[in-house]
Amino acid sequence: MAADLDATLERYAKIADAAVDRALRIGEQKTLKEAMRWIPMAGGKRLRPVLAMMVGEAVGGAAGAKRALPLGTTLELIHNFTLVHDDIMDRSPMRRNLQTVHIKWDEATAINAGDALFARGFEVVLETPGTPALKAELVGEVARMVRRIAEGQQWDMEFEKAPAITRKDYLKMIERKTALMFATASYGGARAAGAPVKLARDLEEYGRLLGIAFQIQDDLLDLSADASKLGKPIGKDLRNGKRTVMVIDALETLQGDQIARFQSIFGRQDASDSEIRELFGLLEECGALSRAAKLADSYGAKAVGRLKGVKKGAPRERLEGMLRFVTARAK
Amino acid sequence: MAADLDATLERYAKIADAAVDRALRIGEQKTLKEAMRWIPMAGGKRLRPVLAMMVGEAVGGAAGAKRALPLGTTLELIHNFTLVHDDIMDRSPMRRNLQTVHIKWDEATAINAGDALFARGFEVVLETPGTPALKAELVGEVARMVRRIAEGQQWDMEFEKAPAITRKDYLKMIERKTALMFATASYGGARAAGAPVKLARDLEEYGRLLGIAFQIQDDLLDLSADASKLGKPIGKDLRNGKRTVMVIDALETLQGDQIARFQSIFGRQDASDSEIRELFGLLEECGALSRAAKLADSYGAKAVGRLKGVKKGAPRERLEGMLRFVTARAK
Repeated sequence: MAADLDATLERYAKIADAAVDRALRIGEQKTLKEAMRWIPMAGGKRLRPVLAMMVGEAVGGAAGAKRALPLGTTLELIHNFTLVHDDIMDRSPMRRNLQTVHIKWDEATAINAGDALFARGFEVVLETPGTPALKAELVGEVARMVRRIAEGQQWDMEFEKAPAITRKDYLKMIERKTALMFATASYGGARAAGAPVKLARDLEEYGRLLGIAFQIQDDLLDLSADASKLGKPIGKDLRNGKRTVMVIDALETLQGDQIARFQSIFGRQDASDSEIRELFGLLEECGALSRAAKLADSYGAKAVGRLKGVKKGAPRERLEGMLRFVTARAK
Repeated sequence: MAADLDATLERYAKIADAAVDRALRIGEQKTLKEAMRWIPMAGGKRLRPVLAMMVGEAVGGAAGAKRALPLGTTLELIHNFTLVHDDIMDRSPMRRNLQTVHIKWDEATAINAGDALFARGFEVVLETPGTPALKAELVGEVARMVRRIAEGQQWDMEFEKAPAITRKDYLKMIERKTALMFATASYGGARAAGAPVKLARDLEEYGRLLGIAFQIQDDLLDLSADASKLGKPIGKDLRNGKRTVMVIDALETLQGDQIARFQSIFGRQDASDSEIRELFGLLEECGALSRAAKLADSYGAKAVGRLKGVKKGAPRERLEGMLRFVTARAK
């Protein structure tokens, strides 16, 4: 089963790589074309198109996977457009071991390339085979998704400045910033493959819950000692003062000296590695890490519960197997 | 006739104002919603939706104008999204007598608000009454248009740094940055109102040619002594070193001392008003201004030539009357 999922992920990721490449061979302006291709062609797991294809396959077999590809490619382009713009907003110099677009070129080019990737996404989704009504439906889903992701981005920026945020705030924000794209990959992949709306809405909820679990895990991973394997510096989120669910939990749980110590290190860019390890120890000791892992698990379990309407078999088992991304990684 | 056109422009602009307002009453994130509304609700002539409605009326009467409104509203939202992003790229502090979004809020909010306006545009175009095939067609036209406008923006930025640019470069750039949106307003307005593709393509060409003429006039206006009436400082383009068709022409035409004098003032932010008036005198003397006015006129005349397939009557006469915007203003 695991080997089977690995092979499928790899196969679909390659198909998505090629589709993204094809989608970005268009254009007459050399600089813009290069800047548009820079981040999308630098790799990435292609999780969004892979998920769309896996859902498409679970609904409509191999033909279903193929029909879900344009929608999946659109989401990959849009995911990359948000990365290019987010990197400007966050002043990030590196992404996927490359300079970000606004550093390699300039900020104006990065804004412009992001806009063009976004526009290209809407051209590609129209390549979905099927009725014009299906194409129009998918356009509406994608447009609404992007608008709501922008809301999540705005909340994220406001939360950074807010004195305190709640678990509910955090969950709302990661739902918008991460889970919505997984939800649309699942809904759109299902619809493109011929699923009726009701089944597709169940799959959308699978994607949404999976996405929330995925983001909690991703935040946990940033803290783990193995984070260097991801090519990110250790404790980046802690130095940036990112209020993840673990931090919110710790601020509620820690007492006396411990909370004072936590607050004296958290959010300081110049915190030493040993101070970061101390924070990590406090998060572990107060139970915030294990509670966050359990929270991710529970979202994962709820996600799988939404697959009941899907025909049993290997494609459905692979969707269940996606839980690996949201649980195994923290161990 | 002129009074009739004025009344129509005013009536349709009001309808577009209300449609833009309605389209931007959506959203749960307070800051984002305010930032999205800031520039679109600050006024503007609503030329793009007005043109879409006028073309819709010429094709399908009052009902045609109504059917063209969602597409027109989409273009107004997208026009405003490009303004918000362009203002960041150009570091412009003011627009429509208000602070620009990146100044009033911050750059990240301005990037995000632009993205959300763009996404909202695609939701609104789907409100076009008619078949799903029509909606999908309009989405494709709008997406391609935005991608090509981004190419124009990139050329514009490159031309600013280039040692020399040609008349052809300039025309390509203004076609992308201005004329394409007029073209899509005309094509989309015609299609939404029920025009067959062939007639709609003629109207698209009308819009494109009108848009080029409009931009040449706009560049001429920036130079004219009356420019203060527009709320812009005199000679802004000259101080910014903007290579308009007049400047390209002057650099080819001026000789000896005159060209040296021109180059010593052109592109200097600290040029005095009297130096700017001197540049203006050189442009006038060498004939660059009158040749540019003639060029705009000839594009305008060609634009009107594309209206032959439209039924004769007041709506078509009003489309012909749009030439006023591209000729009368320079006088």
